Amino acid sequence: MATFSFLDDYSEGAHPDILRALTETNLAQQAPYGSDDHSIDAASRIEAHLGDAFEGAIHFVASGTMANIVSISSCLRPHEAVLAVGSGHIVVREAGAIEATGHKLIVVPAVDGKITPRNIEEALAANSHFPHMAKPRLIYLSNATETGTVYTLAELREISALARQRGLILFLDGARLGAALASHRNDATLADIASLVDLFWIGGTKVGALLGEAIVVCNPALKDDFAFHLKQRGGMLAKGRLLGIQFQALFGDSHLFSSLARHANAMAAKLAAGIASHGYGLAAQTETNQVFPILPNAVVAALQKDFAFYVWAPADDDHSVIRLVTSWATPEDQVDAFLARLVSAQP
Amino acid sequence: MATFSFLDDYSEGAHPDILRALTETNLAQQAPYGSDDHSIDAASRIEAHLGDAFEGAIHFVASGTMANIVSISSCLRPHEAVLAVGSGHIVVREAGAIEATGHKLIVVPAVDGKITPRNIEEALAANSHFPHMAKPRLIYLSNATETGTVYTLAELREISALARQRGLILFLDGARLGAALASHRNDATLADIASLVDLFWIGGTKVGALLGEAIVVCNPALKDDFAFHLKQRGGMLAKGRLLGIQFQALFGDSHLFSSLARHANAMAAKLAAGIASHGYGLAAQTETNQVFPILPNAVVAALQKDFAFYVWAPADDDHSVIRLVTSWATPEDQVDAFLARLVSAQP
Amino acid sequence: MATFSFLDDYSEGAHPDILRALTETNLAQQAPYGSDDHSIDAASRIEAHLGDAFEGAIHFVASGTMANIVSISSCLRPHEAVLAVGSGHIVVREAGAIEATGHKLIVVPAVDGKITPRNIEEALAANSHFPHMAKPRLIYLSNATETGTVYTLAELREISALARQRGLILFLDGARLGAALASHRNDATLADIASLVDLFWIGGTKVGALLGEAIVVCNPALKDDFAFHLKQRGGMLAKGRLLGIQFQALFGDSHLFSSLARHANAMAAKLAAGIASHGYGLAAQTETNQVFPILPNAVVAALQKDFAFYVWAPADDDHSVIRLVTSWATPEDQVDAFLARLVSAQP
Amino acid sequence: MATFSFLDDYSEGAHPDILRALTETNLAQQAPYGSDDHSIDAASRIEAHLGDAFEGAIHFVASGTMANIVSISSCLRPHEAVLAVGSGHIVVREAGAIEATGHKLIVVPAVDGKITPRNIEEALAANSHFPHMAKPRLIYLSNATETGTVYTLAELREISALARQRGLILFLDGARLGAALASHRNDATLADIASLVDLFWIGGTKVGALLGEAIVVCNPALKDDFAFHLKQRGGMLAKGRLLGIQFQALFGDSHLFSSLARHANAMAAKLAAGIASHGYGLAAQTETNQVFPILPNAVVAALQKDFAFYVWAPADDDHSVIRLVTSWATPEDQVDAFLARLVSAQP
Repeated sequence: MATFSFLDDYSEGAHPDILRALTETNLAQQAPYGSDDHSIDAASRIEAHLGDAFEGAIHFVASGTMANIVSISSCLRPHEAVLAVGSGHIVVREAGAIEATGHKLIVVPAVDGKITPRNIEEALAANSHFPHMAKPRLIYLSNATETGTVYTLAELREISALARQRGLILFLDGARLGAALASHRNDATLADIASLVDLFWIGGTKVGALLGEAIVVCNPALKDDFAFHLKQRGGMLAKGRLLGIQFQALFGDSHLFSSLARHANAMAAKLAAGIASHGYGLAAQTETNQVFPILPNAVVAALQKDFAFYVWAPADDDHSVIRLVTSWATPEDQVDAFLARLVSAQP
Repeated sequence: MATFSFLDDYSEGAHPDILRALTETNLAQQAPYGSDDHSIDAASRIEAHLGDAFEGAIHFVASGTMANIVSISSCLRPHEAVLAVGSGHIVVREAGAIEATGHKLIVVPAVDGKITPRNIEEALAANSHFPHMAKPRLIYLSNATETGTVYTLAELREISALARQRGLILFLDGARLGAALASHRNDATLADIASLVDLFWIGGTKVGALLGEAIVVCNPALKDDFAFHLKQRGGMLAKGRLLGIQFQALFGDSHLFSSLARHANAMAAKLAAGIASHGYGLAAQTETNQVFPILPNAVVAALQKDFAFYVWAPADDDHSVIRLVTSWATPEDQVDAFLARLVSAQP
Repeated sequence: MATFSFLDDYSEGAHPDILRALTETNLAQQAPYGSDDHSIDAASRIEAHLGDAFEGAIHFVASGTMANIVSISSCLRPHEAVLAVGSGHIVVREAGAIEATGHKLIVVPAVDGKITPRNIEEALAANSHFPHMAKPRLIYLSNATETGTVYTLAELREISALARQRGLILFLDGARLGAALASHRNDATLADIASLVDLFWIGGTKVGALLGEAIVVCNPALKDDFAFHLKQRGGMLAKGRLLGIQFQALFGDSHLFSSLARHANAMAAKLAAGIASHGYGLAAQTETNQVFPILPNAVVAALQKDFAFYVWAPADDDHSVIRLVTSWATPEDQVDAFLARLVSAQP
Repeated sequence: MATFSFLDDYSEGAHPDILRALTETNLAQQAPYGSDDHSIDAASRIEAHLGDAFEGAIHFVASGTMANIVSISSCLRPHEAVLAVGSGHIVVREAGAIEATGHKLIVVPAVDGKITPRNIEEALAANSHFPHMAKPRLIYLSNATETGTVYTLAELREISALARQRGLILFLDGARLGAALASHRNDATLADIASLVDLFWIGGTKVGALLGEAIVVCNPALKDDFAFHLKQRGGMLAKGRLLGIQFQALFGDSHLFSSLARHANAMAAKLAAGIASHGYGLAAQTETNQVFPILPNAVVAALQKDFAFYVWAPADDDHSVIRLVTSWATPEDQVDAFLARLVSAQP
């Protein structure tokens, strides 16, 4: 039996419907650089979810780091800084990409992986010795967060209200927005998000696309000249159709964007429930497609023979927290196999 | 009859073999970020063409602008500048992408779209008032050039010798390197190029891939930490397999990289010959997959009813230069149709 | 007799009145970072010359390159480019300082060292393939130019009208604005300039200050947060008084800013007239404090024994163009000595 | 009686010897841009303190932020990050200047305002997920620190050894290096520092100069092309003599650099001792020219009538920490007056 990986949610290719759509449309000639029929249709399918008040624009890029680079650098002046929690993807997983565009990151303490109005307020107060300090101007948050937690609608509203009151831009990194919206903890819609933030992006890569993220610029004042930034940062694909076709499929009649995310979350929930039923604790609530069980080190070692996953942190001398990530492609029998192996590995 | 486009060489999707390879490997789990089996194999297939002395490294990125950004910014210090011709892609088609990484571009006059040792020498002399002038440090050239011309091996050797003598980095943008190598004017191999330049890239997008360019770092001194730059600029894909699989196909047993480029060039040659046989001149020699006929404006207008192409420049009051680009996917019957329409459109 | 230098206009220290003012105010405590009494008073003295409609702001910095960096980078978004002539100081004498802030420079052909509406229009047309080309957004001009020529009021009005019509920011580098305003060719006032450009700076270094340039932000929309940029680029001095005191002196009751510039120009005019009276030509009209005589190489060699100056360019096999720069501190007897030596050096 | 300021150590102009030197040398012509006789002599005077093994280079700039910008950006590649404590000047007092050159700052917890080997090690461990994290490459420390503490020679040696072992560049911000070297806690010499760090700078502004900091590049590998960076960042003064003359005076026969720093420290020590003798505590040891007394709020209010100083932080409901900074120019009678007022203000 080969090792099965719970390392991440981008170990497989694409949902078969996506490959089929690519194949079916392959030889038709299309306009380049995102002005193809597919990208235009995909944008309008997404827009249908954003509410009647939406007057923004939608652009597609190849990677999440690119989505963050373009979104943030397009709307800040050189002296303006970003507020983000220390576990934020732009803070610790993008090799200094935002600073490379010239902007300071100001780290705000997190609560359950999330940024909070109170902590934002404190960061604003601590960074107000102007002009000697960079000016806080944009709030960055990820939903789902990097640890798998989800913002409630009430939380998003509070942060949005604070941002508007203080003249801050609110930006949401949606690398795992599908998982967030499919969470049992979620009570927000895409239209809610579009009405509360200035710009956000909808991740495709982690929900069944080969690659691709859809940047949604909600605040009309931030739309101007957006395409220049895509081009300048290397984020505009000659064959933009590749992104358009995939988002057509994700937001098509099969509602893959939702259904694939629900599958991933369901597999995580089954893992979490199974693990708990065997008497093991979890280091965090399972709100989306990430599970953080606390296991005896001997059990961890036994599981590693058949499954790949990250050993996240030591819990005590004899136990470790591991991280299991499920995806749109995780077969339920692998979840069952994992739980069975957990039983057989028990001391 | 619908309009057929000769606008560019990225109007279609991918060669069917590539889509087939994506489909066949789709659900196998792979390591992310370019460390998948496909990327490793693709790199070794390319390396097999680079000569025994090659001790460099190969990385895959999603777009040509990204390939230029990462290649150039990874090897320059802040005060170092780039020498390039005025028609160079980084000068006039990348929205200031290189300057956005902090580096000055020094424009060198072109001869047939190409940079020459003599013009480089003059630019060095004119930019030597140090430290008040930025320090010229990298020579950028495209092969094929933006106007479809090709560097001979002798030309590349001369430029390389000059670069080494003057302590300059030599960098080759290979967005259309396939077309260049397949040109009847070409006498260089990939191994020649790898031995003469410090780094270059092999374009996949314009020779039948959905997207993807292979950066080849030839100079071992430039290899260190290259992956950080990919990540920082947003050029590292979670599913790096998408790039690896395509370059496996391009450099596989069917030699698509060569054969698809040859097809594009052959279609251009047929167009050029046909146009000439009808008594029209060409504004430039047809060395690769771009043709620049000089046609009466009335003929141009007639052709535009059935074909899409750029009207490149006015030639005189009654004539214009148009640009026709062929691709790996151009059907020969469209070439025939174009030539037939040319005849019927004659005044 | 020691060598006397006509190399530049910053070979001496400061006008004695400036040193006296520094000494007299030395031990009084002042607020830091430009909020001292002297800087406030100096700004209001300058403002008195800017016309009643002025609603801008004035800031002082230590160097001309800093004035250009802060002025330009504070008002451009990342994809916006600068239009400047090839001889522009930011193009060839600032080591890529503007590109280092991320912005492309688009070179416009010069006429007599000056940028013209026609050439601006052509550059706009040639740089309009959006979003693949950076967006021209700011016109940079120097007055006096780098070759000593001066813009007339009519020329400035035409450029300003074009800038406003096309939505471009107009920025004037005034490193030698004193010399320009004191030129017999000039018919513009500081108030004219303030009404026509969006921002400009008044050079102090080349007109008798130890250092210091006054940035005048005329367009109120560009005032916000300007101090952040000064600080971020390292241009804010702890003892801002040093700059304030000097501009108090330059714009004080003795009108040093005008009178010192007039002296420099008068010395240049005397040199030019004397050289012409001896039968030698000039490569350019002497409009400010730079003189470009065309002399036999043997004469050049003889003069170099007693005077330092740049040999600017070869004129023909036997003649060279030299550059003589006069300053606020040039003693008239050195001008006389130069002319006398010119006579004795004649073949 | 007017208010006397203990706000900072840059409220006054320059030591009279400096103004005298500027006046005496004022009209002699000098080469520009730091190649004047004074800068050359000043560099050699400083070099005389750096030990026989010194093979570096010395450059002068106008401000501390400029010294940090040029020093750091000249020696890092784009993906390399800086380790600094949260109170570090570059972290919280330079408006994002280092990030504006593209580099990430990684904040390391401080102990008494200082960076420690243990905390550096932990930061390295926490930032090792390459290439997804920026690469820690330069250690920034200030001596004296922003809170007035001083590194011992043993501490500097330990950090230097760690830096060399881990391949890190060690950079010391010496805005208050004079105060550090004059501290009773100090046991390091300039030669020690030059042998232990890769580059550092000696602050002039806070020890009696009008402006000016001397950057000392100790590591010969970092010397190349340094002047380009000075120029590109706007840090090269046309009249470099202004900086050279001042450092000649500071490092001349009167040893102003040492004696002025000793005076500032002595005034702080007298304040600290006097405050303690009246029964008040200090929030930090007084190691240099900063004193942090803890006073009843009523006393603070009374003192504010005659003296200016920062109220630094609340201590408890009835007490506050204030900050008093002394300088080379602080008259002893103002120290006496402050202590007298403290007595009269006692409840």
